[in-house]
Amino acid sequence: MLALAASGAAAQTPGRAQLERVVAGQHEATVKALQDWIALPTIAAEKRNVAEGADYMRRLALDAGFQQARVVQSGGVPGVFATLDAGAPVTLGIYFMYDVKQYEPSEWASPPLAGQLYDRAGEGQAIRGRGAVNQKGPETAFLAALKAFKASGRKLPVNLVLVAEGEEEIASPNFPTIVADPEVAAALKKTVGVFIPAASQGQDGQAGITLGAKGAVEFQLIVGGETSDKYPKADVHSSNYARIESPAWRLVKALDTLVADDGHTPTIDGFMDNVAPLTPRQKELIAQRVAVTDEAKEKKALGIGRWINDEDFQTSSERFLGQPTVNIQGLVSGYTGVGGKTVLPSRAEAKLEFRLVPNMTRDEVVTKLKAHLAKRGFDDVKVVVSGGYGPNQTDENSPFIQAQKRVFERLKIPYTLTPRNAGSWPGVVFNGAPLNLPTGQFGIGRGGGAHAPDEWFLIKSGNPKVAGIDEATMLYVDYLYEVAKLGRR
Amino acid sequence: MLALAASGAAAQTPGRAQLERVVAGQHEATVKALQDWIALPTIAAEKRNVAEGADYMRRLALDAGFQQARVVQSGGVPGVFATLDAGAPVTLGIYFMYDVKQYEPSEWASPPLAGQLYDRAGEGQAIRGRGAVNQKGPETAFLAALKAFKASGRKLPVNLVLVAEGEEEIASPNFPTIVADPEVAAALKKTVGVFIPAASQGQDGQAGITLGAKGAVEFQLIVGGETSDKYPKADVHSSNYARIESPAWRLVKALDTLVADDGHTPTIDGFMDNVAPLTPRQKELIAQRVAVTDEAKEKKALGIGRWINDEDFQTSSERFLGQPTVNIQGLVSGYTGVGGKTVLPSRAEAKLEFRLVPNMTRDEVVTKLKAHLAKRGFDDVKVVVSGGYGPNQTDENSPFIQAQKRVFERLKIPYTLTPRNAGSWPGVVFNGAPLNLPTGQFGIGRGGGAHAPDEWFLIKSGNPKVAGIDEATMLYVDYLYEVAKLGRR
Repeated sequence: MLALAASGAAAQTPGRAQLERVVAGQHEATVKALQDWIALPTIAAEKRNVAEGADYMRRLALDAGFQQARVVQSGGVPGVFATLDAGAPVTLGIYFMYDVKQYEPSEWASPPLAGQLYDRAGEGQAIRGRGAVNQKGPETAFLAALKAFKASGRKLPVNLVLVAEGEEEIASPNFPTIVADPEVAAALKKTVGVFIPAASQGQDGQAGITLGAKGAVEFQLIVGGETSDKYPKADVHSSNYARIESPAWRLVKALDTLVADDGHTPTIDGFMDNVAPLTPRQKELIAQRVAVTDEAKEKKALGIGRWINDEDFQTSSERFLGQPTVNIQGLVSGYTGVGGKTVLPSRAEAKLEFRLVPNMTRDEVVTKLKAHLAKRGFDDVKVVVSGGYGPNQTDENSPFIQAQKRVFERLKIPYTLTPRNAGSWPGVVFNGAPLNLPTGQFGIGRGGGAHAPDEWFLIKSGNPKVAGIDEATMLYVDYLYEVAKLGRR
Repeated sequence: MLALAASGAAAQTPGRAQLERVVAGQHEATVKALQDWIALPTIAAEKRNVAEGADYMRRLALDAGFQQARVVQSGGVPGVFATLDAGAPVTLGIYFMYDVKQYEPSEWASPPLAGQLYDRAGEGQAIRGRGAVNQKGPETAFLAALKAFKASGRKLPVNLVLVAEGEEEIASPNFPTIVADPEVAAALKKTVGVFIPAASQGQDGQAGITLGAKGAVEFQLIVGGETSDKYPKADVHSSNYARIESPAWRLVKALDTLVADDGHTPTIDGFMDNVAPLTPRQKELIAQRVAVTDEAKEKKALGIGRWINDEDFQTSSERFLGQPTVNIQGLVSGYTGVGGKTVLPSRAEAKLEFRLVPNMTRDEVVTKLKAHLAKRGFDDVKVVVSGGYGPNQTDENSPFIQAQKRVFERLKIPYTLTPRNAGSWPGVVFNGAPLNLPTGQFGIGRGGGAHAPDEWFLIKSGNPKVAGIDEATMLYVDYLYEVAKLGRR
């Protein structure tokens, strides 16, 4: 059990000990619920379990005590909208993603959908499965908190508005449509802010509050017989490259204009114009995180020996959070097997993504990319924008964030304030106009391997400073009472 | 039956009518032999049927009348060396490749190894299968000619030396070793030249004699965790690209230096230094081919609307035969599935090939490539040369080529002299030092789809001007008698 200063929390959370017993009593059911959810992966890129995943999400909400939950059609993978009216003065918004990243079973130690429990060296009992930490584990912990209220016959101290989507992993192309649904928008407007459950703890128990996230825009550049009659319609013998243009070389030439020779500085015309540099306070917050992070361990986990330019940890961390990027996710053209094959490919595709920082917007960078390519005559390079959204940022002094800080402080959980997540979630849909709500990622517990093989989430922690799933659940109980106080301000 | 002016040939080929009857009588067996061979694909890139394919090739040679045939180990896929001593004054060299290109069954109209016979619209009866035209069909026609001699109890007018390899499709990395075998080299030294059986006819019956071929060097450029600790050892979440170098971008930057912005002019330092421009005679020969070729049909077959720079057919054809190239065969990095996936790839690979014209050499261009990359600091880009050889070129006035011309002229088969094949075969191993032998591709018949799905070869032609497999066989009979005369000069 987490050595939380539960006495501090208990003073603020009425009947905490009873709720804690309920959470402990439902532990097996909570783990089973997470396993069942992992077994049903919704993968937007593969259009897998689209209807099934949405309906499952709807039933999860009802099961946890939401009084109404409905599937919201969006043109893509549908969303789910649910409300729980506790008759409270304060309403809290929650964002869920119910989709997961693609996976390659052969790369896993156990089947990615099995949700296998195993002993993780130096950590405790963990669950291994796609979506375990990103984001079904933390979300299951939040739902378990609601179930504990329900099982105790206790009323929630706040009302809840839940909005879930099934396309987070393809950069939420239809999420604005879901949130723009009049009923959804009206409900959200009443909230004090929207958070996404997250497992923020490091191996040493350090937790975090994240004040924002980069935006992400996913797009593909495609060249080939489908974009110009200069290129063959199907792969041909490579001797023909002496007289026929190559889509692969054309793609290389187009790509080359997007990033400087250093391999990381964006060179799309005007791309950096609206980049807000990190503030001194943001750099200070980064320094606080750097001070409590084991750089060598982080490098090892990433499988690298050096940061860009051999930079020190502070400089590199500022780059991590402050730098917008033009990443190549993948390249595919022609022959991709072992060795070579003498073909002239008929098609070449680069899969890319922008990561955006304030004050960049999705529309801005898409427009600039297209203008950049057009100006250089790349009218035979097709740009397909498959999803995306801008960055989000919330003031650390906002009451919404203050409530999160108070929970950590009462529980004596050491934490850092992270000015921004280098990854992305579509908080801008809440954070930007017209809702202009505070947003954040919040939670304890621990996991890893998001988007990679052997994704995991801690179930029973072997370290008293790190939360297992039940302690993560109890934090949300405490948080709900803390949020309830915002109405009394 | 081909409307060949067999009377002209008959005067030079003793007992031609009888041999023609034997060839017709063994037709079913010839087709069956081709189907059986297609059913056993040796694919060097996949190390498939390495020992089996060599042994099969050895038995094919013995079966056709070679008195001795042995497998020659080379360090890679072995070669086969066979001799047929007819006690004749003249010895002819033959080069076979017994390997075939990789294939993807799902792209084929019938199983690639089935050798299915079908009615090909406007052509006649054809066989569909991997290797049908490249090169098992033409080679089977040559073997059928030898079998006709054997079945007739007739002595060959020339001695034969056969050298076969099983790595042509990966650019013959070990073929020099096979030819350098003392016994093989000594036997080849006695030949008047070496030819590879080929199906040279167009749909209108136009045949060709090819006086040379470009060289080819296959190589891969690899960047990633395996080449530098700047890059991750496994794919990581793409947010990390803000602080970790990208192998994919590094590869793009390295590639970008190899070819000009036009997408086709090589820019490797010194790459063009030894390029011999086409001679006026070579341009004249190209013009002859251009005059009898349907440009629109050729563009359609290649699936394109335009040549490079919208060039006219003559200019484009000169480029086709005269231009050395740096082709991208394939690109592969990170996520290659549908849509996107937010990873920073740990590895990026480009598969490339040079095509070389006289007087470039393999060693020269490999050295220049490495120096070019080193000069620009790309020491983290690994160059893997997987195979290759230089160009070959034979004088059209050499007795060896003159004999080929006389066969076509006697049979009244219209033909063009092609100064060079834009594709490649390792003729340089015979053509260059120390053997310095004339080389060429020679034969009639017709096929298509080399290196592509639905590769085919004509079995029974519906057009009297185009050869089926039996007429292709008879041409080799006539050719052997023509070569025999070289000893009387």
